[in-house]
Amino acid sequence: MAHIQVPDGVPGIRSLVMFRPESGQYLYELAQLLLRGESPLTEAERELIAAYVSSRNECVFCMCSHAAAARHLFKDKKQVVDIVLDDYKTAPIGDKLKSLLNIAGKVQKNGKEVLPSDVQEARKQGANDREIHDTVLIAATFSMFNRYVDGLASFTPTDPKAYEEMGARLGEKGYVLPKQS
Amino acid sequence: MAHIQVPDGVPGIRSLVMFRPESGQYLYELAQLLLRGESPLTEAERELIAAYVSSRNECVFCMCSHAAAARHLFKDKKQVVDIVLDDYKTAPIGDKLKSLLNIAGKVQKNGKEVLPSDVQEARKQGANDREIHDTVLIAATFSMFNRYVDGLASFTPTDPKAYEEMGARLGEKGYVLPKQS
Repeated sequence: MAHIQVPDGVPGIRSLVMFRPESGQYLYELAQLLLRGESPLTEAERELIAAYVSSRNECVFCMCSHAAAARHLFKDKKQVVDIVLDDYKTAPIGDKLKSLLNIAGKVQKNGKEVLPSDVQEARKQGANDREIHDTVLIAATFSMFNRYVDGLASFTPTDPKAYEEMGARLGEKGYVLPKQS
Repeated sequence: MAHIQVPDGVPGIRSLVMFRPESGQYLYELAQLLLRGESPLTEAERELIAAYVSSRNECVFCMCSHAAAARHLFKDKKQVVDIVLDDYKTAPIGDKLKSLLNIAGKVQKNGKEVLPSDVQEARKQGANDREIHDTVLIAATFSMFNRYVDGLASFTPTDPKAYEEMGARLGEKGYVLPKQS
């Protein structure tokens, strides 16, 4: 049961946004911009970073929903997602994405963990300022979403099918504000 | 030196918002809503929560600027701020605010750390759903800002006067987007 009175049976962030639509609006617009707006990173890569950070924060709702969105967007390469969540170093992804996941993992712990050598490695693998910026901001933003969702103990569905549907919706329609309760 | 090319000499979050104004706009609007918008918590209390979380994340820029804003807003009780940052349990503040700082400190670690007993204690001290919600969301949001600011190694002024001026500006004018570079 959630720590505060939110609509019954509505999962995760959606229930919190219905509790307080004024802040919810900015949170959804921020997610839409970061994960679907213009960026040198693909939508699939950005969802993967979101799922990876959520996994490290053990936020089951965010991890499952963004992993599902990433699987939907990676299409026939969707097996990549679970390998990254298990150990990204062994995943069949490029070295640039690996170097960005390294930075995201450090941001998840604390911003200060990102060292000049981490950024140098990302640049060596071809990452530019915008890719480094977007990786850090997505990792920081999911450190917020994870804490918001778990800090208020919002409802976390356990049926994998619920996340599959959520992933398809997020992949197709992006972050659309739910109707107010 | 910042990890990416941002305007020279512009401190903290402002330099990052100038690098990427599209996301910066939502970040400033979110800060303005959470710290200055309608809430049962006073602006001073909300700045205190922001400073407390930033202090626990050892984000010097965010801690100094929000502590300065809190001092400005607490006016003749401004000594409260430094006592809270040192050990809130000994501070001359009400038990309700102490119970909310306890929740904020747990959110800073991980959302899951907030237990039903923490929320029960806050309710016992008179906190309502909105106060608990706003505390969790402010703590989560500063877990983001701290990571964004430190994860990109943005410029952190060392002169206490710079923060005093910043605190007065934030206290008087709130979160106003800087002009684009």
